[in-house]
Amino acid sequence: MAFEKVKRSENYSEWYNNLVKNADLAEHAAVKGCMIIKPYGYAIWEKMQQQLDKMFKETGHSNAYFPLLIPKSFFEKEEKNAEGFAKECAVVTHYRLKVDENRKIIVDPDAKLEEELIIRPTSEAIIWNTYRSWIQSYRDLPILLNQWANVMRWEMRTRLFLRTSEFLWQEGHTAHATAEEALVETKQMLDVYAEFAETFLGVPVIKGVKTSNETFAGAVETYCIEGLMQDGKALQMGTSHFLGQNFAKAFDVKFQTKEGKLEYVWATSWGVSTRLMGALIMAHSDDEGLVLPPNLAPFQIVIIPIYKTDEERARVQEKAFEIKKTLEKNNISVKFDDRDTHKPGFKFAEWELKGVPLRIGIGPRDIENGTIELARRDTKEKSVINIEGIDIFIKNLLEEIQSAIYIKAKSFRDSSIHKVDSWDEFTKVLEEKAGFLSAHWDGTSETEEKIKNLTKATIRCIPLNNEQEVGTCVLTGNPSSQRVLFAKAY
Amino acid sequence: MAFEKVKRSENYSEWYNNLVKNADLAEHAAVKGCMIIKPYGYAIWEKMQQQLDKMFKETGHSNAYFPLLIPKSFFEKEEKNAEGFAKECAVVTHYRLKVDENRKIIVDPDAKLEEELIIRPTSEAIIWNTYRSWIQSYRDLPILLNQWANVMRWEMRTRLFLRTSEFLWQEGHTAHATAEEALVETKQMLDVYAEFAETFLGVPVIKGVKTSNETFAGAVETYCIEGLMQDGKALQMGTSHFLGQNFAKAFDVKFQTKEGKLEYVWATSWGVSTRLMGALIMAHSDDEGLVLPPNLAPFQIVIIPIYKTDEERARVQEKAFEIKKTLEKNNISVKFDDRDTHKPGFKFAEWELKGVPLRIGIGPRDIENGTIELARRDTKEKSVINIEGIDIFIKNLLEEIQSAIYIKAKSFRDSSIHKVDSWDEFTKVLEEKAGFLSAHWDGTSETEEKIKNLTKATIRCIPLNNEQEVGTCVLTGNPSSQRVLFAKAY
Repeated sequence: MAFEKVKRSENYSEWYNNLVKNADLAEHAAVKGCMIIKPYGYAIWEKMQQQLDKMFKETGHSNAYFPLLIPKSFFEKEEKNAEGFAKECAVVTHYRLKVDENRKIIVDPDAKLEEELIIRPTSEAIIWNTYRSWIQSYRDLPILLNQWANVMRWEMRTRLFLRTSEFLWQEGHTAHATAEEALVETKQMLDVYAEFAETFLGVPVIKGVKTSNETFAGAVETYCIEGLMQDGKALQMGTSHFLGQNFAKAFDVKFQTKEGKLEYVWATSWGVSTRLMGALIMAHSDDEGLVLPPNLAPFQIVIIPIYKTDEERARVQEKAFEIKKTLEKNNISVKFDDRDTHKPGFKFAEWELKGVPLRIGIGPRDIENGTIELARRDTKEKSVINIEGIDIFIKNLLEEIQSAIYIKAKSFRDSSIHKVDSWDEFTKVLEEKAGFLSAHWDGTSETEEKIKNLTKATIRCIPLNNEQEVGTCVLTGNPSSQRVLFAKAY
Repeated sequence: MAFEKVKRSENYSEWYNNLVKNADLAEHAAVKGCMIIKPYGYAIWEKMQQQLDKMFKETGHSNAYFPLLIPKSFFEKEEKNAEGFAKECAVVTHYRLKVDENRKIIVDPDAKLEEELIIRPTSEAIIWNTYRSWIQSYRDLPILLNQWANVMRWEMRTRLFLRTSEFLWQEGHTAHATAEEALVETKQMLDVYAEFAETFLGVPVIKGVKTSNETFAGAVETYCIEGLMQDGKALQMGTSHFLGQNFAKAFDVKFQTKEGKLEYVWATSWGVSTRLMGALIMAHSDDEGLVLPPNLAPFQIVIIPIYKTDEERARVQEKAFEIKKTLEKNNISVKFDDRDTHKPGFKFAEWELKGVPLRIGIGPRDIENGTIELARRDTKEKSVINIEGIDIFIKNLLEEIQSAIYIKAKSFRDSSIHKVDSWDEFTKVLEEKAGFLSAHWDGTSETEEKIKNLTKATIRCIPLNNEQEVGTCVLTGNPSSQRVLFAKAY
């Protein structure tokens, strides 16, 4: 292929940027910090969406759509958030352009809005302002909604998929009659995210709760799933917030209980975004390009014909179509790359770069033998297999690849969780091995902040079902009742 | 139900607004001109999306995503559009909020953008600016992309679904090596829209081409599908534009032909929006509420249990679940409304309001008889049918309803196309019968404009495959070679 190769081991960040670009996943837009998701990248995102949407519906949620723009005053209602919320937002101040005397397009100064509007960084405010009129009685609860949308946070340092000013996501917003029910929902959605990450992305995740430093401004508790990338950095892949009654109080949303009392409504919100594309890329890919788990691959298998003459081409084509049909009958998605503008070697490299899990090469001699050559993207193993019974063989192999990708990532992740018991050990392991550091911490925000300033490592989470164990904080030596997970993170 | 009923015949516009609100389809948002699409409304939109997306993919298109914000200067590049393009746009001028000394949230005056950004009213500009780097050679063509997105046009007078400042839509943007190929694409997508409108929405449409007055500012030709609502007003339901080389020239997008020459690329764009929800509502609904064609109904059938005692409830429940399962095996979507908070009569009215095509009422006596009571939403016919064989019966009946809804709308539409041959006749028929007026027109924009100012009727389209017929313009008496369709429109 016509691009420079940088190995992961040489420059992980450059390797990532090249891969996103060369595999046709995304590119930077003319507007600073925004991205264009290219068709191949978008096809992977669509597969993620479809599966997540199915899981949301299976757990009783419906989709809806709330407006892009939020009046500035709404943000003031979230008292608690006045300090905490992200202020790097896109602000709409005018509603008209006009052509001036020089035929230049200018913003019409007469079309200034009375109140500025903010492009949603997240939709709690507008949604809870709406729930006020939807909820009167316990009969109106629970409300279990999700929205697929674009959101915007003005970012200075951006990286495709991982951190962009505009990104795509889903945001669930639920309303409940009791704290217990809201907590069950919060944890249920965390489980949905974890299951999705492990069985579709093939990325093992640690479920945990954030420290108060890292909790979403409007939340009582923030639950998260944390994955580990191949460079030993952690990536927060999804969050599920127990919002308590914070938004109900900010937007005055009360309901009449069965007993006739007026109470504030309990809330959750939860989201995953196009950041998952970054996780997918960084967890599995190699120096040849993307490695896609079959469950999310737009094409699970590519067939590349090998021929010299037109007559050979026709023969190979016929057989290839036959194989394609057989596979498609088994719900395997197949690309037959019949372009005559490129040589097989070029195609091999291109589909390797694009991470297609399996590749079939087929030529006239293969047809005579009743075989094809099969190459696995994840292990690069090649084998010759019989065309007869190919559908069952491939179906099983795709399942095996899905597992193998997960197991490889899991064994890397598991071997990257390091127990450290002193400050020396902490800094040394962080420097030399990266990954997660399982360490005692005294539970204070001050210590957490200090460690972050000293090492750039943050507490990724307090794992759920954490073992209780007496110890002393690695930095301060103060008593601690459990280890938490530190890491450098994206 | 707890709301005021207004009949279509009394006040069509109020009837529409009430219906949208009471059937839980959508509501106005806190931001002027924007709407909240409620879960039931969104579920119908999702069904539309799924089907359209399938049809786009079957015709070779892929989805992608381009940024929400467009630099103001991009609009200047569309020379032709400097005058013509819609200037009522939301303008982003700042990128940060801050908390002032009084703890009020204000726009940070230090965070002013160097160049203002426009929330996309449509994405030709940003997409063609991107295509410039994607297209070098004929080998890179065609590009067949679609995007599902929110767009924004600042509207002063809004109506839910029909005209809102923010709306959801899809926009196809394709690039081709020849004018012929781009024209074939333009017409193909018009056919896709027409097929979708007729077989899913159940709304007959007239395919035509717009006059130059009504052509999209950046287009050479605008094709459209026009539907007729029950009040005799026309609704433009979708457009497909042949853009010629306009955008390629504005954004300097050239390609090398097979022969090695450099040429500008040919383009199309095409879109339908949440406006189709308005078409669906206005074409079929009646004074009792929504009438949904089975192909787009979130639930095709609702089962309502009728019982007095707990014992009866249990028996009815069991049978209802059995029927539900049988129907679901046949891909029929079923809602079992087992709420014990509401009486059957209330539920009947609610699901009637929400337009569910079929309703089953089932009680203890029905079970004894092995029957259920079945009510059709569109005709309000009731019948008693056997539970045995119910799946095949319902499956066929749903198909019949889909056809019946279309036929009813078509016979109304067909009887609402009036040939008129004089100005007196034109104004009289427009006043008394509404609908489409098929009339001769002298082909000038001036006459078209005059007729619009005199009567509010516009030329909806010049139908494709229009009969050529010599005549004289209804207004000016000047010669004309064909009739065109006038109507008042949304």
